[in-house]
Amino acid sequence: MYRALRLLARSRPLVRAPAAALASAPGLGGAAVPSFWPPNAARMASQNSFRIEYDTFGELKVPNDKYYGAQTVRSTMNFKIGGVTERMPTPVIKAFGILKRAAAEVNQDYGLDPKIANAIMKAADEVAEGKLNDHFPLVVWQTGSGTQTNMNVNEVISNRAIEMLGGELGSKIPVHPNDHVNKSQSSNDTFPTAMHIAAAIEVHEVLLPGLQKLHDALDAKSKEFAQIIKIGRTHTQDAVPLTLGQEFSGYVQQVKYAMTRIKAAMPRIYELAAGGTAVGTGLNTRIGFAEKVAAKVAALTGLGELILPENEPGSSIMPGKVNPTQCEAMTMVAAQVMGNHVAVTVGGSNGHFELNVFKPMMIKNVLHSARLLGDASVSFTENCVVGIQANTERINKLMNESLMLVTALNPHIGYDKAAKIAKTAHKNGSTLKETAIELGYLTAEQFDEWVKPKDMLGPK
Amino acid sequence: MYRALRLLARSRPLVRAPAAALASAPGLGGAAVPSFWPPNAARMASQNSFRIEYDTFGELKVPNDKYYGAQTVRSTMNFKIGGVTERMPTPVIKAFGILKRAAAEVNQDYGLDPKIANAIMKAADEVAEGKLNDHFPLVVWQTGSGTQTNMNVNEVISNRAIEMLGGELGSKIPVHPNDHVNKSQSSNDTFPTAMHIAAAIEVHEVLLPGLQKLHDALDAKSKEFAQIIKIGRTHTQDAVPLTLGQEFSGYVQQVKYAMTRIKAAMPRIYELAAGGTAVGTGLNTRIGFAEKVAAKVAALTGLGELILPENEPGSSIMPGKVNPTQCEAMTMVAAQVMGNHVAVTVGGSNGHFELNVFKPMMIKNVLHSARLLGDASVSFTENCVVGIQANTERINKLMNESLMLVTALNPHIGYDKAAKIAKTAHKNGSTLKETAIELGYLTAEQFDEWVKPKDMLGPK
Amino acid sequence: MYRALRLLARSRPLVRAPAAALASAPGLGGAAVPSFWPPNAARMASQNSFRIEYDTFGELKVPNDKYYGAQTVRSTMNFKIGGVTERMPTPVIKAFGILKRAAAEVNQDYGLDPKIANAIMKAADEVAEGKLNDHFPLVVWQTGSGTQTNMNVNEVISNRAIEMLGGELGSKIPVHPNDHVNKSQSSNDTFPTAMHIAAAIEVHEVLLPGLQKLHDALDAKSKEFAQIIKIGRTHTQDAVPLTLGQEFSGYVQQVKYAMTRIKAAMPRIYELAAGGTAVGTGLNTRIGFAEKVAAKVAALTGLGELILPENEPGSSIMPGKVNPTQCEAMTMVAAQVMGNHVAVTVGGSNGHFELNVFKPMMIKNVLHSARLLGDASVSFTENCVVGIQANTERINKLMNESLMLVTALNPHIGYDKAAKIAKTAHKNGSTLKETAIELGYLTAEQFDEWVKPKDMLGPK
Amino acid sequence: MYRALRLLARSRPLVRAPAAALASAPGLGGAAVPSFWPPNAARMASQNSFRIEYDTFGELKVPNDKYYGAQTVRSTMNFKIGGVTERMPTPVIKAFGILKRAAAEVNQDYGLDPKIANAIMKAADEVAEGKLNDHFPLVVWQTGSGTQTNMNVNEVISNRAIEMLGGELGSKIPVHPNDHVNKSQSSNDTFPTAMHIAAAIEVHEVLLPGLQKLHDALDAKSKEFAQIIKIGRTHTQDAVPLTLGQEFSGYVQQVKYAMTRIKAAMPRIYELAAGGTAVGTGLNTRIGFAEKVAAKVAALTGLGELILPENEPGSSIMPGKVNPTQCEAMTMVAAQVMGNHVAVTVGGSNGHFELNVFKPMMIKNVLHSARLLGDASVSFTENCVVGIQANTERINKLMNESLMLVTALNPHIGYDKAAKIAKTAHKNGSTLKETAIELGYLTAEQFDEWVKPKDMLGPK
Repeated sequence: MYRALRLLARSRPLVRAPAAALASAPGLGGAAVPSFWPPNAARMASQNSFRIEYDTFGELKVPNDKYYGAQTVRSTMNFKIGGVTERMPTPVIKAFGILKRAAAEVNQDYGLDPKIANAIMKAADEVAEGKLNDHFPLVVWQTGSGTQTNMNVNEVISNRAIEMLGGELGSKIPVHPNDHVNKSQSSNDTFPTAMHIAAAIEVHEVLLPGLQKLHDALDAKSKEFAQIIKIGRTHTQDAVPLTLGQEFSGYVQQVKYAMTRIKAAMPRIYELAAGGTAVGTGLNTRIGFAEKVAAKVAALTGLGELILPENEPGSSIMPGKVNPTQCEAMTMVAAQVMGNHVAVTVGGSNGHFELNVFKPMMIKNVLHSARLLGDASVSFTENCVVGIQANTERINKLMNESLMLVTALNPHIGYDKAAKIAKTAHKNGSTLKETAIELGYLTAEQFDEWVKPKDMLGPK
Repeated sequence: MYRALRLLARSRPLVRAPAAALASAPGLGGAAVPSFWPPNAARMASQNSFRIEYDTFGELKVPNDKYYGAQTVRSTMNFKIGGVTERMPTPVIKAFGILKRAAAEVNQDYGLDPKIANAIMKAADEVAEGKLNDHFPLVVWQTGSGTQTNMNVNEVISNRAIEMLGGELGSKIPVHPNDHVNKSQSSNDTFPTAMHIAAAIEVHEVLLPGLQKLHDALDAKSKEFAQIIKIGRTHTQDAVPLTLGQEFSGYVQQVKYAMTRIKAAMPRIYELAAGGTAVGTGLNTRIGFAEKVAAKVAALTGLGELILPENEPGSSIMPGKVNPTQCEAMTMVAAQVMGNHVAVTVGGSNGHFELNVFKPMMIKNVLHSARLLGDASVSFTENCVVGIQANTERINKLMNESLMLVTALNPHIGYDKAAKIAKTAHKNGSTLKETAIELGYLTAEQFDEWVKPKDMLGPK
Repeated sequence: MYRALRLLARSRPLVRAPAAALASAPGLGGAAVPSFWPPNAARMASQNSFRIEYDTFGELKVPNDKYYGAQTVRSTMNFKIGGVTERMPTPVIKAFGILKRAAAEVNQDYGLDPKIANAIMKAADEVAEGKLNDHFPLVVWQTGSGTQTNMNVNEVISNRAIEMLGGELGSKIPVHPNDHVNKSQSSNDTFPTAMHIAAAIEVHEVLLPGLQKLHDALDAKSKEFAQIIKIGRTHTQDAVPLTLGQEFSGYVQQVKYAMTRIKAAMPRIYELAAGGTAVGTGLNTRIGFAEKVAAKVAALTGLGELILPENEPGSSIMPGKVNPTQCEAMTMVAAQVMGNHVAVTVGGSNGHFELNVFKPMMIKNVLHSARLLGDASVSFTENCVVGIQANTERINKLMNESLMLVTALNPHIGYDKAAKIAKTAHKNGSTLKETAIELGYLTAEQFDEWVKPKDMLGPK
Repeated sequence: MYRALRLLARSRPLVRAPAAALASAPGLGGAAVPSFWPPNAARMASQNSFRIEYDTFGELKVPNDKYYGAQTVRSTMNFKIGGVTERMPTPVIKAFGILKRAAAEVNQDYGLDPKIANAIMKAADEVAEGKLNDHFPLVVWQTGSGTQTNMNVNEVISNRAIEMLGGELGSKIPVHPNDHVNKSQSSNDTFPTAMHIAAAIEVHEVLLPGLQKLHDALDAKSKEFAQIIKIGRTHTQDAVPLTLGQEFSGYVQQVKYAMTRIKAAMPRIYELAAGGTAVGTGLNTRIGFAEKVAAKVAALTGLGELILPENEPGSSIMPGKVNPTQCEAMTMVAAQVMGNHVAVTVGGSNGHFELNVFKPMMIKNVLHSARLLGDASVSFTENCVVGIQANTERINKLMNESLMLVTALNPHIGYDKAAKIAKTAHKNGSTLKETAIELGYLTAEQFDEWVKPKDMLGPK
């Protein structure tokens, strides 16, 4: 079994923390920072010049202004699939930064040369902060274990760390991408770990806040509309009355259920695969490495309670003029998420032996869904929900014309007679009251006493 | 919003309880039973004779040997879609029996004539016990609210109750299908309630026990294989070693996660829509009706802890001869469940106004999935898992030949040299040890010291 | 590659041919029929008695009143998944009957003892006619190659043929299930062939006729409504006018496209795998066997042009009272078919090496979809489409109130001014004409000249 | 019904034509080009300055260096969903350029001022060539009819044409985005038309060439491996032999079927909705407009036969060392495409009234799938297929050890005896030949005569 460790995810992640705060984090050796070399402007200047690097298949030209190395270049040559929009999502890259920093801290505890460890941590922080996004050109459609992206991260951190220490890019000295950056790790534990970190962060920073915003806006409307009685509709046909507030409370409940379901799934997201290495056994790591890395990751991403974004004031959309295009964007997002879900399901169903090799595709779709749903919730809330107003005139007109008010008579005269009143009124174009009296089922007084929309909103 | 009530689901449901136990249940008035009329053998004798019933569209011929009435016959004429295999799943019919019985009890508390209420309860019990399954001919492909099945239930219970009380089938006297059996109810609250009851029962009686059986069998194998070291494989290629027990512990964990996910979804299944009536407001019910019905349903289905079926002895399948067809059945079931899931998702996405009209299709798929997964888990366990034995000879041979044992050298000589050893050995068809020594990277003693499969199973 | 042979599928299949016609079919030796023994009433009498049969795993009890044998019983013991509703669809069983008969004819040409061949043909015909449906108890959830159902067919035909020839059930003498019934065949070519035959028949007999019926009814409505002008709607909002006939012509076109797509897929369904045997190479068959079997199958199922069922007179549904439940059944069917499609896709994606082992699940879903869509098309047509009438009064009222008639002014006064008229009219609750004149953009005469719904139905 | 016109799609589209060729195209008035104003460098210089534009909701700040206008800016404010990777795919934008150019030509024929028409054509060509991609910031998640992207195109072409004619950006003079660029058009006919053009071009330029390349490479391998006999496998178990070439011919056939299916779908893609305007009736267009636009689009994109890209020499991957990561990328792409397919299906199922409002999402997914499948086919071919070599030594070893060669004995000694040989040999670890002789079923000579793998590759 993969070693699974529980991580209490928190809300204010490293990836958005100010650099100053990070510099003084324990174990990072902030004072040492000035001794790092800045990026070599001369060496990085031209994007037309190349350096030669080697991997086990031979020599490769690597752009001089990029930190990645031979294995990354090899992947770009072998996987020309889909172009820049198909690149590994940046939340995965940032999560790798967090993970590699945590691993370097723990490796230092276990004896890794502090100079090397510190340089790795510093470079990893830059990855976590998104400063080196341009150095991750690989697309999702690569090896299904994410090995090439793990190596991309190892190479970028290695070269950036080498640069900080005054070494030569691509020399692997003094910071080797495998032996130092990837120490005690394997793609098969780091990539799933980064998947989980990225998914947890997107869920907490984009998806749940977006849904909460939508929930609150709907809930406010539910309360605002508590006194407006309208005709309900089922099968696209008139039914019995309810308040507009009751109707909106249904939407509130649906969003609430959605959040409950998402939160119920998070405990399994918080379990990290770190420390499993190649096949989950933890080969080439030290006992305790996994637990320490998980604790470090938790410390780097979790320092307080979830802070929701402030609910900005609504847009200036004309009162009463609801923009249906927001609904269309929302429903298109929903259809996309259903499709993404199938892609994840199909991918997840295809693990063989000790490894599932659909992981890059899976995390791309999970993050895509989280982002789309979160963003769409905010957009829908700000540009649609908060501007919704009730057209009470039309609501009343439609309700009072509705033959389905007849339902109130069931307890008094029985289903069969009530049905006859409704059908006769529909056929003759007459009102329920007229028809009921004509049929001799009740008096005008009884009708007025029994058929009151405001008494039809709940049990008595 | 639909009134949602929490029901603590339990494991020993009414539907399988012995008739004797039910007869003495509180509130049922067991002593009154003898006064009920037995089924009229003469009237029911011929399946070729008909009685005439009426609905609001006109007269209809109803088979004399059936308890259903005009609205059910109308539906069979209008929805000739798919034939008998497409009938409403019996768990839904049984759940309706439980619900109608509970409603009748509560309606009696609120003043319904005890004679009528008792007859309804007795007839509903027969529905819950599956005794009247032949009287439910409607297919899933009907109205999306399930109204026709609710009416089918009302008609069957009404006619069976009328018969018990010596009345005439189809007369609606003294037990009216709408005014008495459906009292304080609507299709739009009873059908969702029956869906939830049926889903909860199938999950507890079929799905979870099936998964638990599979889990236990895999867990036993994991322990049995704790000492067998094998080569792991990733990307369908050799990787580093693990024990066969570790490998099986991964399967155990997956099944455990599956059960956790299912259980995490149950709280929302235990919320019943009962009491909402037509649009969720509870029109035509009494205050407290919903809560009381939910409590009755809980009492009828929940009286003890979940009792798992005994793990029967394994089949007589030849030891060591694993039958791969069980895997095929299991994976076909998985593909079907993915498809069913999409059908449910599409249906669930299509609610309009106050009602979703895809419910019969949704519950059919949910129950189908629960049943298939539960049954397949048991079949797979009994006919495959318990018979699995380790072919240690072949496991050892493949492991010792594997070049990926080279990974153990990484911490000693670095990734690059280790990779060179593996590539050279692969090219020359030589062993890792020979190659490593030839390349001058280490001594024979060092190789024997460092490369020990049994030391490669975890962190040190 | 599987040997693929083209078969021109035709419409009047053996499965519905009268028994008399079959008896005199060439090669069947009709005169010999009287010499066959009838079913042994004594032996088959009790469903409680058993005979003992053997397979390679040991002895098994086979019910005396069933023609299937040991391998079928073994499967029922090993695959208790889902119950009777999950049985292999009867169209597959019938298709096997056609195929086994064709194979027996060809095997006789290649030297199989005519007495044995004739008995096989006769028994296979009974399978094709559905007379022996009760002898096929196996569920879909078995081996993914359908081997067990192929053996079920072999056993039933073998035993029924043995019985005809006066032999002992289960003795395999004189008709052996493998050596004679399955001669020159393998599950891996017969099951895919039966899948194709079953799918082709269901498409031609249920799906396409159902869609054609729906198409014709919609087309008739399109013509009937050619002169009724209504307001169009986009984004659920009013747009510009069109005729109700134009609107219905869109539905006609969609159904037509659906039929085009289905027909475009048929050529690949008409290719039969027969003759490929175990891995598609045709081992143990004779050269020409495959072609001859395909020709025989074509002859058995294709003797005339497609004859569509007569369009029955419509139901008695009240004019003007459209029953929306038909739409709900139709849309639920659509959601189910989407789910079935995913199941087939997932299954189809999982072939490994020389075989895909998801075939029973795939054909179940394909047939399910074909049947549901065909039946639902007929039900929807008869109970909904043919009864649709136009409510011209309301159509006119809504159209003339629609502000979107303003679009007719674009070519005369430009988009910006037209938009201002519509917005002002909406805000003030005034008419387009009043507003346009007040704003000084045109005269009353110009408005009347330019804004005529009947001139807004197409290009000028 | 939407007016549907057939367009014979061709392969060398405008979008990749050299600018020089376009300048001299008939109707474009190449000589007039010099009189157009070049982009105003001063005005476009700073990306920090803004101009003020208005739409019906009020004033908006538009970046000075962008050609789009107020409605585009409004959309960017209202739909902050997903960021830059979610932008409308560039093939859709380019297709709009082709369509707008064609419409301008036809509008000129119908009387549009040639100066305005020519400027629109010139600007539209720039859109079609991808020169103005930076001016299309809108995301897919907008109105489901694509109206905002249509307006984005209208605004960009309008402003670029105004600039060419020396006017002021945002003034709508002398080229109005609605009255001139969108003349005789509506989002509801242009967006579907652009969807079809974009899909047809991607299929012809990316998807089919990619599949053809894969097909050819597999076909070459099939021929190369025609003489290599191997053991076949079904159910992941050994079966009977076939040649490696036969095995590959199955893959060839699958790719061929895929291309056939794609081509069979194209006729419905070639039908263009142009000329339908808002609800498909062609309001505000001239008779013949639709046909002429379709003809112009065909002329702009179709001038020759499909020219496939040259099959570049394979990558330098080590012979015999197949890189399984290519398979993983391919299978991940397949899972993604299945998910995309569901998203399109769900979107397509949700049309209401006269419009489907899921179109941007649908075309995004269709193009995504086409691109991924096409690119992945090329990548898989170049980096995997062409390097595949047969390991004949291992193939022979596995084949000769396989007990399934016993199948060759069936016609000689019957299924039951053959099965006994295989089972006995498996149990005793002996060879088939030894076992068969020991059991007394045949002689050594008979075995050698009957069991020859090279005779087991087809019917005799």
